[in-house]
Order: sequence, then structure tokens, then C-alpha cells
Amino acid sequence: MLPGPVQEALQQSLVDFEGQGISLLSLSHRSERFDALMHSVQTRLRSLLDLSDEYEILLCGFGASLHFSAIPLNFLNEEGVAIYEMSGYWSDRAADEADHFGRIWRFQAPLNVSDAARQQGMEVREHMLGPELPAYVHYCSNETIDGVSWPTLPDQWYGEFPCPVIADMSSDILTRPIHLDAHAMVYASAQKNLGITGLSVALIRKDMMGHARSQTPRLLNYEILADTHSVPNTAPVFPIYALEQTLIWIEQEGGVLAMHARARQRSDLLYSFIDASELYLNDVPQLIRSQINVPFALRQSGLTDPFLAGAEERGLLQLQGHRSRGGVRASLYNAMPMEGVIRLTEWMREFEQQHG
Amino acid sequence: MLPGPVQEALQQSLVDFEGQGISLLSLSHRSERFDALMHSVQTRLRSLLDLSDEYEILLCGFGASLHFSAIPLNFLNEEGVAIYEMSGYWSDRAADEADHFGRIWRFQAPLNVSDAARQQGMEVREHMLGPELPAYVHYCSNETIDGVSWPTLPDQWYGEFPCPVIADMSSDILTRPIHLDAHAMVYASAQKNLGITGLSVALIRKDMMGHARSQTPRLLNYEILADTHSVPNTAPVFPIYALEQTLIWIEQEGGVLAMHARARQRSDLLYSFIDASELYLNDVPQLIRSQINVPFALRQSGLTDPFLAGAEERGLLQLQGHRSRGGVRASLYNAMPMEGVIRLTEWMREFEQQHG
Repeated sequence: MLPGPVQEALQQSLVDFEGQGISLLSLSHRSERFDALMHSVQTRLRSLLDLSDEYEILLCGFGASLHFSAIPLNFLNEEGVAIYEMSGYWSDRAADEADHFGRIWRFQAPLNVSDAARQQGMEVREHMLGPELPAYVHYCSNETIDGVSWPTLPDQWYGEFPCPVIADMSSDILTRPIHLDAHAMVYASAQKNLGITGLSVALIRKDMMGHARSQTPRLLNYEILADTHSVPNTAPVFPIYALEQTLIWIEQEGGVLAMHARARQRSDLLYSFIDASELYLNDVPQLIRSQINVPFALRQSGLTDPFLAGAEERGLLQLQGHRSRGGVRASLYNAMPMEGVIRLTEWMREFEQQHG
Repeated sequence: MLPGPVQEALQQSLVDFEGQGISLLSLSHRSERFDALMHSVQTRLRSLLDLSDEYEILLCGFGASLHFSAIPLNFLNEEGVAIYEMSGYWSDRAADEADHFGRIWRFQAPLNVSDAARQQGMEVREHMLGPELPAYVHYCSNETIDGVSWPTLPDQWYGEFPCPVIADMSSDILTRPIHLDAHAMVYASAQKNLGITGLSVALIRKDMMGHARSQTPRLLNYEILADTHSVPNTAPVFPIYALEQTLIWIEQEGGVLAMHARARQRSDLLYSFIDASELYLNDVPQLIRSQINVPFALRQSGLTDPFLAGAEERGLLQLQGHRSRGGVRASLYNAMPMEGVIRLTEWMREFEQQHG
């Protein structure tokens, strides 16, 4: 789902890009206009994320899943070890992929625990590793399928744990403020809050560069992507334009804080409704509920399919839960208007009355 | 450059995809319509290319350059050797990348030589290898930057050389008939003759699968892409739709033979004009001239920039030669109408008269 103005800009760009009489799809990645587009995207991202010059901004012509491979290839040497914090489906996928490239230690992410328990968890990690420092710690800030989110990002937790922290923020980048300086790398695929598929963004601290394995595919080598200014040969012009238009829209709507306020409003409404109902259930502990993805189940068996069918008739689309867990899932990315959540709760109320 | 009807279909798809009231960019890769799209693309490609069921058709969410890495990762084991036939810029890039993954033997492609010399070349390859068979032979069927093309594809040449043949056909797939059965794999990025960026097509004989190295990134593992029907997680819906529309257009225009006849007409006109002129020069031997990419130089120094500037004023765009060699380059992909070549030669004539 794209914001209306972004959708319109993309449509117009295919017909006549900026009044130049050509389609955006014909724009060469070697043109001045493309250079200006890259500059615009980088400047806007840097400003919206309050990102210092210590970080490279890479625009990669592939999705987050190839970063699952690229991260160990770039940062983990054959003898090293990396820590993966497990919080749900996507952190699991990242660790499964990293397993091919070296020693990966999985820890249950200390999410819904007291400060003391979290402190203890950190000590366990240090103790197990002994004198060996991990090459990095990887976590996923928001789990789209499990509806689980890190309540505070782990900069404090790893504050006294001197190793680089890498975050997959595919689903919540630009939906809440991030303390980016606490990370060595943050990456996100574009299709959730940054436009359309075919692109991902990687923000990488410059001192991380230069240690890729010799067998790293060239296009997955972050140093090469940085050296070629994200144009190793061709570039995904259309998704990059979609990103620019999305960033402009976010700026005009008030920036990341405005996006965050809306995300809270949307998810507060939906969780309140679910918690007050007899029919719907979300069993994620309050503290770690995602503001972006709200999965829920129907307590009576056999009602999920009729619920989804009725939703679709009402234009409430793509509510089916991920095939790995079924049920219902509402994804409330930046482009989702409050109106969409209100209409969803209206249908939920109507359906509950019918089957109460 | 896209054919007009494809361009229009893409525009319409962003506004209202097939009258469903949604943009194609909102179409889920888990919808029935997406499954139908994948089926349509595969069926049309199989038919246009006359491809047997022995081959998998993979639609990959990345360009040809990642195949440069994926090919050795999938087909070359740590001890093996692969032959790369050198014919210009892109075969060179493929070999440079393969060097990271194993022993690569480069041979000058036996292009502009007699049958006897070619036969001798094959014997040299066999002799050098000794009893060791190469894991595969890789070649690039058309070099976009050098304007060089394999006059006959090397199925005969390697006929008695029992190892898999892999071809990068990014720039000439669907522009001429291919003897596909002689190949173990053919791959092509989409943006030249198959639609837009963000996609590549790989046709792989099924018996090639299953030997990828353990450190192959999951999304570059052809067996996994085949097992997941090219949807390892998400899929590039928009470029796949652009491919479908391009294939429909080719069918309606008369298929590969019609495309080939047009490619010959376009390039014949341009080469004849160049050869008859005093100002323009293409020094590629007749036999191996590309029908798709026609690079040429101006014999008088200092005239290239004014020539290109005047061309641009006349709407003749993207004629600048590749930065690695300068000069002028006309790319005559399937979507280029004969009219475009006629207008180019008119400008070339006018410019030559001005500077004669």
C-alpha cells in the first residue's frame, strides 16, 4: 500500500516523467537527473533519520533477504562467531541463512523481561563467549508475523557489550525514532515503509567496511556498493523514485515523529478493540506488542475464513495471517490511514455481533 | 525503451489493474492472480523459446550480474575449473567475478576465424585441460559495448566437448532463434528485451541442480529458487507483469522469427550507412557484428560531442558510447522501431554534410 500522492507520482512518471516527454522507465542511471534523484534520496533519508556522516547510505537492488547472506559475508570471518537475537519468524530466517557462513549463536531475545533479567541475560552472553568477542549482534526490531517488537531498541542493552549491533528494520524504519548511532548497520527492504519492491536501504558505519570475504558476490559486497555510490552497474530507477516520493510524503506529513504518533493511534485503537472483545485474541504481552503488525485469532473455530471473506467484500484486503501461523493479521504501515483501522474495527464489531 | 502497448499496459496497471480497483503495486505475490501471472509468463516463454520440459524457468528478483556470482557458486566446486570465452566487456566481467570462486580459464572466443582455426582452438582447450573436464563453459552471446556477437551459437563447437554450456543472453534473447537444447543454462536480465529492471530470467536444465556450495546465499541457489517456484519469499510483481506484457507483444508481432527479421533490417540499414560514409567507422569484422548494439566512432576528432548533442535535440536519446570506450552506440533492442533507425541515419547524413 502506498500513500495517495506517491501512487499518483508513480503513475504520472510512467506517462511523462517531470514533463520531459519520456517515461521514468526510460531514464538512464547515467543521466544527470538520476544523479540528482540519488542525491535527493540520500539527503532526505539522512535528514529524516538524523544520520551522521559516519554512515554510508546504500541503495541496493535487492530485498532484505539477500542482506541475510551479505551480512555474514561482509562482517563475519571464517573463525568468528555472531550472535543472533531470536524474537520471531524473521530473526529466525536471518539466523538460518547466517548458519551457512559461520558459527551463529542464537539467544532468546530478552524482550518481555525485567531490567534485572535482561542484565542477567547480557551476562550469560558474555560468559558463554569468554574472551572471544562476537563479530556482531543481529536483531530484528519488529517481527511482522509474530506481531512482536523490541520495546526499546537495544542500544542500552549492548552499551557495555563492545561489539557492532546490526538491525533488520524492514517493517518499522521511519515509523518510530531510532537511536541510529548505537548501530553499526541498519537495513530495510523498501516495500513496507519505503516504497515498492526491488530495493533495500542499508545504513552502514564506514569503519565496518573492508572486511568482506573473498568469496563475497560483488553486488553483495558493501564496500563495492559504497565505492560505486550504489551503482555497481545498473540501478533500480523506478523503486528509487518511489522511495524519493515516499520520503517527500513523510516530510510533508511531519516526519518520523508524526508517523510514530499515527502508528501509536492506529495500533492503540486496534489493540483496545481486540482486548475488549470476547471473540478476538492477541496474546502478545503488552510491552512488546508491535505497533505495525497486529496478528489476532478468533476464539471460535471455523470463523476465520468467513471473517476474512466478509472483510474482503468490504475492501479490507490482505488480512490473512502468514501461512506459517494462520489467523488474521492487520499490517499498519505508514501509508495506512486511521480510517482503514476504523473500518476494520467496524467489521470486527459487526462480525462479532453476528456470531456472538 | 518499451514497446508502446507494453508501456500503456504498465501505466494502466498502476491506476487500476485489470479493472480490480487496485494498483498492480498492491497485488500480493500470494494471490491467485499472481499465480496466474507466473503461469502465463512461464508458458509464453516456454513456447516462444521452444523450451522443453527438461528446463526450469526461474524468474529471479535481481539482474544478470548476480548470476555472475551465482553460476560458480551453483556449478563449480572448490577443486573444479571453468572455461570462460572472452568476447568483450561483459564476458570479461563474468570471468572477473567467477575468479573469486575458483579456477577460471579464459580463452579468446574463436569468433572471427575459419572452421579449421576454430577446430584447432577446441583442441587446444581439450589439450590444456588434460583429463580434467571443466565444470562448464561460459560465454556471452552478444557484447553490448563492443558490438560483437557470436555468429552461430556455440552448440556445434562444443558438440564434442562434453561439458555444460552456459550463456549470458541478456542483450539478444528473443531477438534471434537459439538452439536452447545445446545449453545447460541461459540467463538474461530483463531490461533489454524482457521488460524492465529488477528481474532476470534463468533457464536451467534440471539435471544441473543440486550441487550448490554450502556457502551459496539462499536467494542465489537455483535449486531453492526452482523448489519455491521462483517465490523464495517475495517476488518482483511489477517487472514480472512487464515481462508478461512484453511476451504478449512479441507473440502478437509474430514471435522470435519476426523479431529476428526486424533486428536484421535495422542493423543492416545502419551498418550499410556507416560503411558507405566517410565520417563514421565501425571496425568490427562483418561476420561477428552485433545486430543489437552498433557502436561507431567519428573519424574526425572533436565531433563526437556535437554529434550527440544534435542527436539529443532531435529526440535520439542514449546514444553515448559506454564510458569504457566513448564514441557512439546505437542499441537496437526489440522495442526499437525501424523508424528510429531511419531518423538516426538522417541525422548522421545531415551531420556529415555539415562537417564534410
